[in-house]
Amino acid sequence: MQMHDWHIPTGYRFAGIHCGLRADEPGRRDLALMVSDRPAAAAAVFTQNRVAAAPVRVSRERVPQAQCRGVVVCSGNANACTGAQGIADAERMATLAATQIGCLPDQMLVASTGVIGRMLPMAVFENGIPAAAAVLASSRAAANDAAHAIMTTDTVSKTSSRSIPQLGVSVLGFAKGAAMIGPNMATMLGFLFTDAAVAPDALQAMLRRAVNRSFNCISVEGHMSTNDTVFLFANGQGAALSGPHLADLERHIAAVCVDLAKAIALDAEGSTHFVTIEVEGVRDDDEAHRIAKTVAESALVKTAFYGADPNWGRFVSAAGYAGVPFEENQLSLWLDDIELYRNGGPLPVDLPTMSAHIRQHRNLTLRYRFTLGSGRCTFWTCDLTPEYVRLNSEYTT
Amino acid sequence: MQMHDWHIPTGYRFAGIHCGLRADEPGRRDLALMVSDRPAAAAAVFTQNRVAAAPVRVSRERVPQAQCRGVVVCSGNANACTGAQGIADAERMATLAATQIGCLPDQMLVASTGVIGRMLPMAVFENGIPAAAAVLASSRAAANDAAHAIMTTDTVSKTSSRSIPQLGVSVLGFAKGAAMIGPNMATMLGFLFTDAAVAPDALQAMLRRAVNRSFNCISVEGHMSTNDTVFLFANGQGAALSGPHLADLERHIAAVCVDLAKAIALDAEGSTHFVTIEVEGVRDDDEAHRIAKTVAESALVKTAFYGADPNWGRFVSAAGYAGVPFEENQLSLWLDDIELYRNGGPLPVDLPTMSAHIRQHRNLTLRYRFTLGSGRCTFWTCDLTPEYVRLNSEYTT
Repeated sequence: MQMHDWHIPTGYRFAGIHCGLRADEPGRRDLALMVSDRPAAAAAVFTQNRVAAAPVRVSRERVPQAQCRGVVVCSGNANACTGAQGIADAERMATLAATQIGCLPDQMLVASTGVIGRMLPMAVFENGIPAAAAVLASSRAAANDAAHAIMTTDTVSKTSSRSIPQLGVSVLGFAKGAAMIGPNMATMLGFLFTDAAVAPDALQAMLRRAVNRSFNCISVEGHMSTNDTVFLFANGQGAALSGPHLADLERHIAAVCVDLAKAIALDAEGSTHFVTIEVEGVRDDDEAHRIAKTVAESALVKTAFYGADPNWGRFVSAAGYAGVPFEENQLSLWLDDIELYRNGGPLPVDLPTMSAHIRQHRNLTLRYRFTLGSGRCTFWTCDLTPEYVRLNSEYTT
Repeated sequence: MQMHDWHIPTGYRFAGIHCGLRADEPGRRDLALMVSDRPAAAAAVFTQNRVAAAPVRVSRERVPQAQCRGVVVCSGNANACTGAQGIADAERMATLAATQIGCLPDQMLVASTGVIGRMLPMAVFENGIPAAAAVLASSRAAANDAAHAIMTTDTVSKTSSRSIPQLGVSVLGFAKGAAMIGPNMATMLGFLFTDAAVAPDALQAMLRRAVNRSFNCISVEGHMSTNDTVFLFANGQGAALSGPHLADLERHIAAVCVDLAKAIALDAEGSTHFVTIEVEGVRDDDEAHRIAKTVAESALVKTAFYGADPNWGRFVSAAGYAGVPFEENQLSLWLDDIELYRNGGPLPVDLPTMSAHIRQHRNLTLRYRFTLGSGRCTFWTCDLTPEYVRLNSEYTT
């Protein structure tokens, strides 16, 4: 999304600067500060990994809350697997930011992404966080700086926004993440801001549902990071919403999440295809999600797309081991508009034509239709390429 | 294992011939027949994939049984996703074999491996199965022919055997499988034979436990085939066993299964490392299996081995999302004899030395030690290489 499309919600300011964490990349932005001028409701969804990074542990204790003032984020070091010192360091980052904007430490959240198992060089924040605070602004340029400061191996920044004129509010989101790639573990981070007024618990429920339909519906290779986090802030500078208006806001928040999630899958390192997996007609949405995720994470499905191979056998058999009961004759399958498999049997397709179709289209849709109910899921993934392996096997130093 | 090590149990005969199924590879063996001279107890463990191939469906109805005479196997065509005709064709294969050896159709099992979604060219079996029956022999050479006739993308045949002199019986096993690779879905098949006398239900339980510790403890990329099957025959030509002797036999059967499973992981296409994953000290063996499997199937762990990257962060975080509750300080981690991580924190290791160690050793062991109990699992896998992607992305025709 281009900068001119951005809708900046009222009452938020952003900064993204180089504080020195990425000492080997002079000038590369590595510190973001995002603040609400007034106390805001804050919600977050965190990694389910048992090995959670220090900033996840610290922020997890602070949401949902009604008095949040923002979040400070560093890129280049994940502050993960860093023990008690890591916790103290994450708390110190938040405290430094809180001091700058004049709030209590607990009103500030924290996130990190980058190399794991290394202590944060805390000295850089002592000047860096005040420097970021000094340039906070509500401009698109400042928001763009923040969106860039959270990037690691991303090749493009990922932003999306929606204006909802009839409600007088807007939603802005940034994300980063391009799969877990070497030499770092490239966490998925998302930050969403709205000027609507929403109570923290309602905001938390709204975010959970939106994440389930977006960030939980992408997979590059299925490895769950120690740092994954999505934050949502609602500062009430715009209208207080209720009933159908809340549902309307949630729809826009979910749309921003979907935009960001798709942008992450599109930026998956080494990929040559962006694949949308649609599953419909199973008993419920959970079953559909299970099948879509299993298909998306099958190395054989992913290499088939890379190889321009319309291999319905891999597509069907991947669905078969998702743990969802079905009979073969309850499944039909399409690749874009071409039906490959109907009611349990392959259809005659011209393989060279199909293969050419895959080669010529970066964006492809694989659609599974079952006859079991109305459960559905849309999932986004990418292909598996030799370049992915090369990128992920480079030696850490 | 070399042919001179083979122990052929009494009362079995084998054949492996070219019947013409692999029309484009003249002379390549594509049909195996393995028979017991007397009715034998037969047990089997089948794929859990909802999309099960026709021979799986047919054989599944016929085990466990006490009167089994053998199994007929074709390679080159999996007879999967072939509908009602596929079932009829699998039954016909079994019937042709049964006719040759003079038993009822239900006394014969059937298996197939190869391309899926294509009908079997049944004509080749009308002469092929009698031709195989004509050369049945109890020799090592005949057994070797059968072991080769079941191969698809395997680069070597996989066999193992044990003699148990104190019991007067032996165990022989063959397997095939080298991951699910293009253009086929390379099923895992296993065949075990013993001349001990064991009742079918006891044999089935014995096989289930052995498979859980062997074939269920390997993973190349986690894609479950439509055809995976392991058969175990016990024809009672040797001693009837009970009590501790049965346990002794089971130990040898499990050892043969482990040999075969490891041989499959060793032959994984495109791999440059064979990795043993040992998990110990969790609450039970199931938890250990869940962690080991998650680690083994992590693309980031697998690419780290390919890249000679001692990336403890990937190793620890993969364990973290296996769904097994633990705290970081309850985990320590070794790569071979080098401790990388102790009680939740990384240890100082010399990265270039560690990397050189990985490069120089094809066989590596990654050991997870938890402090939660006595559950344990040993799992075998391989690395993920650009060659794997190349092999699996070649276009099907």
